[in-house]
Amino acid sequence: MDELYAGVDLGGTTIWCALADRDGNIVCDSQIDTDAHEGPKAVLDRIGDVVEALSAKAQKRPVGLGMGVPGVVDLKTGVTKFLPNLPTLWRDIEAGKILSERIGCTVRLLNDVRMATLGELTFGWGRSAPTLVFFALGTGIGGGITVDGKLRLGPLGEAGELGHQTVMTDGPLCGCGNRGCMETLAAGPAIAAEGVRLMRTNLAPKLYDLVGGDPGKVTPKEMADAAEAGDEAVRVGIYRAADYLAVGVANMVTALHPDVVVLGGGVAEMGDILMDRVRESVRDRVRMIPADQIRIERSQLGEKAGLLGAVALASRGYGTEDNDQ
Amino acid sequence: MDELYAGVDLGGTTIWCALADRDGNIVCDSQIDTDAHEGPKAVLDRIGDVVEALSAKAQKRPVGLGMGVPGVVDLKTGVTKFLPNLPTLWRDIEAGKILSERIGCTVRLLNDVRMATLGELTFGWGRSAPTLVFFALGTGIGGGITVDGKLRLGPLGEAGELGHQTVMTDGPLCGCGNRGCMETLAAGPAIAAEGVRLMRTNLAPKLYDLVGGDPGKVTPKEMADAAEAGDEAVRVGIYRAADYLAVGVANMVTALHPDVVVLGGGVAEMGDILMDRVRESVRDRVRMIPADQIRIERSQLGEKAGLLGAVALASRGYGTEDNDQ
Repeated sequence: MDELYAGVDLGGTTIWCALADRDGNIVCDSQIDTDAHEGPKAVLDRIGDVVEALSAKAQKRPVGLGMGVPGVVDLKTGVTKFLPNLPTLWRDIEAGKILSERIGCTVRLLNDVRMATLGELTFGWGRSAPTLVFFALGTGIGGGITVDGKLRLGPLGEAGELGHQTVMTDGPLCGCGNRGCMETLAAGPAIAAEGVRLMRTNLAPKLYDLVGGDPGKVTPKEMADAAEAGDEAVRVGIYRAADYLAVGVANMVTALHPDVVVLGGGVAEMGDILMDRVRESVRDRVRMIPADQIRIERSQLGEKAGLLGAVALASRGYGTEDNDQ
Repeated sequence: MDELYAGVDLGGTTIWCALADRDGNIVCDSQIDTDAHEGPKAVLDRIGDVVEALSAKAQKRPVGLGMGVPGVVDLKTGVTKFLPNLPTLWRDIEAGKILSERIGCTVRLLNDVRMATLGELTFGWGRSAPTLVFFALGTGIGGGITVDGKLRLGPLGEAGELGHQTVMTDGPLCGCGNRGCMETLAAGPAIAAEGVRLMRTNLAPKLYDLVGGDPGKVTPKEMADAAEAGDEAVRVGIYRAADYLAVGVANMVTALHPDVVVLGGGVAEMGDILMDRVRESVRDRVRMIPADQIRIERSQLGEKAGLLGAVALASRGYGTEDNDQ
């Protein structure tokens, strides 16, 4: 039997752990609540417990572990620097060392969206498209870039923060401090906010019915359904967000001419209404590259991109070749 | 004596040829008028003549030749596809083959700004900064990207067209067909147009004096001088262009976290008024990377970047390593 690697996707609400072989075949996996309020030590302890339980089940211990974390981590030391969505923010927590001592194998940490990019590179689109740009569309917009089969990290692991491209010079305030970042205009909250506005101005009757008039229930997915059911104003609102997303995508296509642009994350699950508009809008903007050479696709790995990226990091390092581990 | 390589920088008005060693030391060089109206055959003939003359002078023939061209070229075949600034547009001209047969060595062609980027990578900032983003500021804005010491080309050699990033979604019409490309708001003509507007509305008295009231004489350099002399409206106009430039620079810093961003081309010669504002504005936008890790510098090679890039391409291929020729 082949050697096994552990992949961990540490999220704000859920931790997903898996054991898999080098080819990304998951042998067994488990999800638990993050319960981050308990603090880093307790969370890392429970991750250790889950990996132990999985090892017992597989009757084999992992020879390496990768963990994606929602924020900034020191790549060399595995020390978390700033995880903005977790209580206590995990500043200067030696997460890699703690897990390594507990589980007895090499541990590597990486930002969660860069990890998902690595997953897509290794086990998804990247198998035939070694230069790719990944956008993770959710509450924010994360991203990652690979060039010739290698993840671009930069000295801090911060390269690829594609949601923080400026697409409107005097646009809305972003959590990062800048104005008009793509995520202020095209992430889930921006899309939903327009749905709420339209509902409150009686321009979205289908959406109103779908969510029972409750603004708290308006999501991009509900909006896609409402547009499909006939709410034209909602469709226009979705197109507007897609067009801002397309600016950021078009800029990356122009800069890098990647083999493929991959859209992942929950918002990408809105379906064709978003994807088709993004494709059309990007091709309309990028005139330096023939339209048939611009590929924009949904993630092949879906919600497992981060988990499988962690397996890839544990087994292969930051690229598809073995020599850059 | 070391082997020699020929570098050629084919411009719309001037052709610059040089023989140099592998380290970029120029042995001899020569500039002639392009006289492009004579057609590709005659122009290529004269390039052959110049290289022959330089070889006679150096008493040594080049073992390889690189030539930068102002437009699109098929990298594999050396066939020019579209040189928009030259009469007849050079569609499907076998320039590489023609030069190779005439001079008797391997010939490689590349877009002129990617060539300048390669020059900067090999003999300029790239010596200490293998991942760099290059902007050539002139009548248009060209660009190039290197990652880990290798030029990013894409399948068509069109990656790095950084002037065609969208920085204003409904902005001015660009020559490429898109709207709001960075070069419509920050290239030489856009900067000069604002100078002309200010002069015509009596807001630029110093500029008026400097150019004798002649709109045809307004250039970015004259505007920098006018701002220095006290034309505050001109200063504001320059800052506005610098801020749009900064959006495109900031987006690349956010996407790639390069070791350095290099500004070259004639407009960059405006000096500190432009550079300082770009630096300030980029650091104001990029919040995900510490300000002290964002380097923005003027080209080390200046107008010779393209010529030396051609020498680099002839001697080393697209990277600083020898193994990717």
